[in-house]
Amino acid sequence: MVDFIDGGVTTPEGFKAIGVHSGVKYRSLDLGLVRSEVPASAFVGYTSNEVKAAPVQVMMEENSPTLTAVVVNSGNANALTGRRGIQDAITMKETVASELNIDPKQVGVMSTGLIGRFMDMQKIKYGISKAAGELSVGREADNLFAEAIMTTDTIKKECAVRVRLSDGTMVYIGAVSKGSGMIAPHMKVLHGTTLSLVTTDAKLSPKFREKWQEILDDSMNMVSVDGDQSTNDTCILLANGMAKGACADDDPLFYEALKIVMSKIARTIAVDGEGATKLIEVQVHGAATKEDARKAVRKIINSPLVKSAIFGSDPNYGRIMMALGNSGVKFNLEEVRLVIKGGEMEVPILDAGAPVFQEERSVEVVRMAMDNKEVAIILNLANGDESAVGWGCDLTYDYVRINAEYAT
Amino acid sequence: MVDFIDGGVTTPEGFKAIGVHSGVKYRSLDLGLVRSEVPASAFVGYTSNEVKAAPVQVMMEENSPTLTAVVVNSGNANALTGRRGIQDAITMKETVASELNIDPKQVGVMSTGLIGRFMDMQKIKYGISKAAGELSVGREADNLFAEAIMTTDTIKKECAVRVRLSDGTMVYIGAVSKGSGMIAPHMKVLHGTTLSLVTTDAKLSPKFREKWQEILDDSMNMVSVDGDQSTNDTCILLANGMAKGACADDDPLFYEALKIVMSKIARTIAVDGEGATKLIEVQVHGAATKEDARKAVRKIINSPLVKSAIFGSDPNYGRIMMALGNSGVKFNLEEVRLVIKGGEMEVPILDAGAPVFQEERSVEVVRMAMDNKEVAIILNLANGDESAVGWGCDLTYDYVRINAEYAT
Repeated sequence: MVDFIDGGVTTPEGFKAIGVHSGVKYRSLDLGLVRSEVPASAFVGYTSNEVKAAPVQVMMEENSPTLTAVVVNSGNANALTGRRGIQDAITMKETVASELNIDPKQVGVMSTGLIGRFMDMQKIKYGISKAAGELSVGREADNLFAEAIMTTDTIKKECAVRVRLSDGTMVYIGAVSKGSGMIAPHMKVLHGTTLSLVTTDAKLSPKFREKWQEILDDSMNMVSVDGDQSTNDTCILLANGMAKGACADDDPLFYEALKIVMSKIARTIAVDGEGATKLIEVQVHGAATKEDARKAVRKIINSPLVKSAIFGSDPNYGRIMMALGNSGVKFNLEEVRLVIKGGEMEVPILDAGAPVFQEERSVEVVRMAMDNKEVAIILNLANGDESAVGWGCDLTYDYVRINAEYAT
Repeated sequence: MVDFIDGGVTTPEGFKAIGVHSGVKYRSLDLGLVRSEVPASAFVGYTSNEVKAAPVQVMMEENSPTLTAVVVNSGNANALTGRRGIQDAITMKETVASELNIDPKQVGVMSTGLIGRFMDMQKIKYGISKAAGELSVGREADNLFAEAIMTTDTIKKECAVRVRLSDGTMVYIGAVSKGSGMIAPHMKVLHGTTLSLVTTDAKLSPKFREKWQEILDDSMNMVSVDGDQSTNDTCILLANGMAKGACADDDPLFYEALKIVMSKIARTIAVDGEGATKLIEVQVHGAATKEDARKAVRKIINSPLVKSAIFGSDPNYGRIMMALGNSGVKFNLEEVRLVIKGGEMEVPILDAGAPVFQEERSVEVVRMAMDNKEVAIILNLANGDESAVGWGCDLTYDYVRINAEYAT
């Protein structure tokens, strides 16, 4: 029903985008702009970090139900910048508004990059003016935008789907995201540094907000690279209704399509975690509550010991249970089932609270399963019916290198 | 008042110790035994990990108010070993009891090493028998015991003090600990893999238990190498009363002396964190509650981004505020004070919510402060009168290396 297509943020009807070089970064693209032909219903999730970047504060304060344009800069997070930072975020909105001849309230703003440095507004203004003149449609525009919002990212995180809704309307969803480190979003609608922008030409009403939270909770909020939630995480969904169909709020097909898009973006962020060589998927089944399942997933996916064991394909599966034991979730150790899956191999690990494998030679099977680009840790707590899935990555030498010399 | 002296677990009157090679490890010492001449009041803190190693389960179940001997093996954690593991832990107690001709209830047991492998009890029994015959007093015995309980530790964690109590009695406290990775103890008395053994010839009554918890909460429970709490953490305090003085339960001098010993051991564990090149001390002052102060310390000391920045002396102080913002603790960003201290340098970082340093050249000062073996992060939340201090270490290439090939 849901078809993946080659596309990005300008694939849905009525969206233009661009990425330019403003000069905040030395050479790479560092400023992106997206515009919808008509004001779009906006659904935004923000970081729940107590230290919120200036653009997040400004957006939350304004809480505009519709947005026509979104400007994003990379290289400087405009976080921990006090009052001057707030003024700079407002100026970014105003500059876009004046260039596009729209109300500043119709402009969303996101920033990512180094924390604790003031913005160079001359460069930003130059970049906005340049971007406003170059907005366009198509794969090149998508790509320039995707590139402009990247920091330590090594791959573009982009996808698009099309789905025919219950009323027959064909709608498109395009998504782009950046995020590689400081990743453990816990975004709350209304009130994670992943920046994501999702565009759709479906029509949505403000009621869709709750569903957007549900989808974020099962997708973006289940990714963790380092357990460190950014000051800047923001995820904006723009629905401009230009596909002309009925309101898609309650259409299960739309919900499904959006969830697929967001889960795909979430996985890609984990694949591109700073220094990552492997994707780790953690599935927890049989939990008493959904929250228990999520807590267990997060604890395991954030454990440095689990992450470094997987990096080295070190079959030290005891660490998975150690992490589960620290999650605060109840389970019966004698009945817990643990499977490690890698490539075509699915290896059961526990039997009545003790590992099946005890001998060096048999442990080799576990090592072989772990020696894959995607490793899944599948737990059944035998304590209920709830499940959760989350994504993370291994802890590698390169993670340390990247983060020991980031500001340098 | 409190004098540090060159000593260890056999320094207090009436304690003997030894470390031997049982064969669980290929070559190094791997089994330690301590014995008190008379039954000693025992105060024990255990891991609060839901997955508890077999020796922890056995000790908690028995909850003996006095102990005469403690056996410790390294190389195998006897964790995640099901019913067989429980039986093996009991057998360890029984073997010691029979060798020393005491009641098995008088024997404490601790294990550390690889999780999820059954014990080789033949080797363990051989080791216990050998150790029982070699128990002795003095610095060599202390050192052999300290060595026998080490895993990835690179330095011995040992200290001793003497203090003259209010009633004139001179008492001694000796302590030894192991711990390098999987360190974030959260030990509860009654009910961190740091294994610690503290001996004293002071006299204590069961009432001292609460104070022991307080001391653990301010010392061992404030160390974190990786935020991963072990399945095996155990800390045993043995007080045999052989100094013949009054009960030291309420003697502030004894409390102070024990706290100094435990804090010193805690710091040493952080210094010897797996792969660590630097000690990080985090002080949080001006918190609304003690629990707030501890939460903030723990979040900062566990942040991979803060830890790797300090490894690289990367003056990315925004990450400290990011971590504080994720701690769930309330503060007023505009009033928070942050100082980074290294060597003789004390560098104030924030002014009204934004960093003082903005220019590359001035940021150099921060880098110089961070370029020290001990770096202190000092925060004042300006929100109350409570404080907490904790210790951790930087995240390095070696941490990854050690943990990517531990089981191998």
